[in-house]
Amino acid sequence: MVKVPHRLYLSEDEMPKQWYNLRADMKELPDPMINPGTMKPAAVEDLYPVFCEELAKQEMDNTTRYIDIPEEIQEMYKIYRPSPLIRAYNLEKALSTPAKIYYKFEGNNTSGSHKLNSAIAQAYYAKKQGMKGLTTETGAGQWGTALSEACSYFGIPLTVYMVKVSYEQKPFRKAVMQTFDAGVIASPSNTTNVGRQILAEDPDCTGSLGCAISEAVEKAVSTEGYRYVLGSVLNQVLLHQSIIGLESKIAMEKLEEYPDVVIGCAGGGSNLGGLIAPFMQDKLLGKADPRIIAVEPASCPSFTRGKYAYDFCDTGKITPLAKMYTLGSGFIPSSNHAGGLRYHGMSPILSKLYHDGYMEAVSVEQTRVFEAAVEFAKKETILPAPESAHAIRAAMDEALRCKETGEKKTILFGLTGTGYFDMTAYSAYLEGRMTDYIPTDEDLQRGFNGLPKIPGIQE
Amino acid sequence: MVKVPHRLYLSEDEMPKQWYNLRADMKELPDPMINPGTMKPAAVEDLYPVFCEELAKQEMDNTTRYIDIPEEIQEMYKIYRPSPLIRAYNLEKALSTPAKIYYKFEGNNTSGSHKLNSAIAQAYYAKKQGMKGLTTETGAGQWGTALSEACSYFGIPLTVYMVKVSYEQKPFRKAVMQTFDAGVIASPSNTTNVGRQILAEDPDCTGSLGCAISEAVEKAVSTEGYRYVLGSVLNQVLLHQSIIGLESKIAMEKLEEYPDVVIGCAGGGSNLGGLIAPFMQDKLLGKADPRIIAVEPASCPSFTRGKYAYDFCDTGKITPLAKMYTLGSGFIPSSNHAGGLRYHGMSPILSKLYHDGYMEAVSVEQTRVFEAAVEFAKKETILPAPESAHAIRAAMDEALRCKETGEKKTILFGLTGTGYFDMTAYSAYLEGRMTDYIPTDEDLQRGFNGLPKIPGIQE
Repeated sequence: MVKVPHRLYLSEDEMPKQWYNLRADMKELPDPMINPGTMKPAAVEDLYPVFCEELAKQEMDNTTRYIDIPEEIQEMYKIYRPSPLIRAYNLEKALSTPAKIYYKFEGNNTSGSHKLNSAIAQAYYAKKQGMKGLTTETGAGQWGTALSEACSYFGIPLTVYMVKVSYEQKPFRKAVMQTFDAGVIASPSNTTNVGRQILAEDPDCTGSLGCAISEAVEKAVSTEGYRYVLGSVLNQVLLHQSIIGLESKIAMEKLEEYPDVVIGCAGGGSNLGGLIAPFMQDKLLGKADPRIIAVEPASCPSFTRGKYAYDFCDTGKITPLAKMYTLGSGFIPSSNHAGGLRYHGMSPILSKLYHDGYMEAVSVEQTRVFEAAVEFAKKETILPAPESAHAIRAAMDEALRCKETGEKKTILFGLTGTGYFDMTAYSAYLEGRMTDYIPTDEDLQRGFNGLPKIPGIQE
Repeated sequence: MVKVPHRLYLSEDEMPKQWYNLRADMKELPDPMINPGTMKPAAVEDLYPVFCEELAKQEMDNTTRYIDIPEEIQEMYKIYRPSPLIRAYNLEKALSTPAKIYYKFEGNNTSGSHKLNSAIAQAYYAKKQGMKGLTTETGAGQWGTALSEACSYFGIPLTVYMVKVSYEQKPFRKAVMQTFDAGVIASPSNTTNVGRQILAEDPDCTGSLGCAISEAVEKAVSTEGYRYVLGSVLNQVLLHQSIIGLESKIAMEKLEEYPDVVIGCAGGGSNLGGLIAPFMQDKLLGKADPRIIAVEPASCPSFTRGKYAYDFCDTGKITPLAKMYTLGSGFIPSSNHAGGLRYHGMSPILSKLYHDGYMEAVSVEQTRVFEAAVEFAKKETILPAPESAHAIRAAMDEALRCKETGEKKTILFGLTGTGYFDMTAYSAYLEGRMTDYIPTDEDLQRGFNGLPKIPGIQE
């Protein structure tokens, strides 16, 4: 029997040297992206004006199972990785559960989340291609922070379109990005056509992730030597984030453990896709059969109440169309929704796997999420990000079911980050001011009405 | 030759099981505390109304070299420890220095600093003695956060007197403490005699650490079953914090390294005293001769411009008198001073060692400190607390001197915590609004004029 420490860190030698590309093992591939200009499947060249070439290739690569992590990226990973695999002894005890709970903690870096794993990769490839600058969007701010760090490290100018409501409510997030030399612009802004158009229609618009994406993409394609980068949803992002799952699996093997259940929060799917990658591989190859559970907010339920359809990735409808679970590119979660996980769509890879029955999804209301967050913080001494707390909630619920049934399940969940910049939401919860919101069917129908029509594919 | 990884984590088995008590190896002991009622050296019993008994004993124990860390404390240490010893490869490269720079990073826990090491110990002993509650004070908020976590873990009610200016400027810090169930009161408050007296004289008083200590002590001694706990200055705190230095030394031994210079920031001395403990032992026993450097703010220069004298630990003059480097218990740093390290005095142990020539001290101005903080963040991807950045500044200066002389020194410094709650100060620096302030001799003289007179000891 292996002694299980509270925290297991792999050594540098044990860290993965390749990313794992889940698509190479999928029985059926996700449907291809569609070029909105031609309404035909996009070729890799179609993506070059938007994405760096190497990243565009990764985006379209459905066959290479393992992709070498360049030396320079491995070097930067070593500055903050490996992240620990933690046995939640205290939480188990507090829940009186026979289940074993493990979590992979990705918040131990200044960006405060797993987002840095892909930010470094994207900044590196941009540097390698000699780009003059990058643009991106950020909502809750984790991605913008991570990319600021990565761009500062590689010396690439960065412009971040930050959803206006976050820009105003999270000045400290903005200050962190500025510390790393990023230019931060509140979106919608007057720096782009799409921003000006939105402001003309509604001067008080507080912005959305979809709108900020439109602005960032427009800025990138209209500025010489610039490219756009995105922190979730894309295939390339899931590829880079596979480091989370690969490390987790190696660590669990050292402990002679294998998860019965793997749980991750899901907004665009970056963490979930990365965490589950090698376990999903086992499932696809028939080597093991862990349950895989996506957890999403009840206020933004793309998996559990969305449609599996082609949709734009942005509000301005300038990006390629992706087949995914979506609430419609015009969907914006209720303003009482705290934190991230507010994107209207979902990773096409995960959408396909969910559609084909390889994984489950649950939605949870935010007061129950914060209840779990506070209990977790008290027992495990980590103050979780609201996003991560969705996974905590589901893991606790699973452990409590095990208490009833007596099952000794091994649960693994992803703790994506820390909640230091989310104290306004914590205060609202602690002071009883937090409310839940579940969109009505009519609310959702408005979003679905905006789904694009594609001749011969989606009428 | 040992390969030096970026981050070295000890295994749980390698973690120290005893704290090290520096006093047991000092040639001359610090002068004893004096009971302000009798003006005679305090006996251990004199401390019982204020401190838990076991902690009072640790406070007075000048002879036991190693003290067992109780199992329960070891268990909680394992939730967030060991902390990594990090080789600053990137910073070295950026500075083009032949020096090797190591740092011990204590910020990888929700309290965001090393303060948790002593908070856990103090909460544990209070629980063991069956206390009904604890009181403390907090300035920048790190100690209050750490103690809130520890008290929540052991189930002990906690009241935190938070310096009013911090209470108002750092609502998120307050929210974190409240997440861990602490009651947080802005100091000066009307809950104590000393608070009411200060408010009567100056209703707009924004508070000071010394004043918050007075309130917390008064509250503890006047409430049945309550005791007071302090996060720095005291001998017991340095004892608990020795875990930092002990882990650092074991990790360096594994790398076949030994520091030529050990650098720590110094406010009350909790981190510095803990970090240097085993290296100072080597020095005291003639086994090695590392340089040991305390770094303090130019705006609160207790080592470099203070007097070595008996003084009160608080503004209200209700605590025992300690012989230490002090600026006078009435000294308050200029309001433009950012972050912690604003205490008027200094650990009696460190004061004695400094006085006897075993260590050096330098003071640095805050714009140079933030300059170092930003450069460090960009290279090492950790956003440091302003306090920690004092040590970074001194380490960088030392590394730059090595660049000039060609010396390949091994530098070890303590990175006490993260700066997520200090973004207001970072913004002030980035936007060029931060100023420096060095107190004049006249400013300091006003503080010295308040030093107490003790018949036969200090006239």
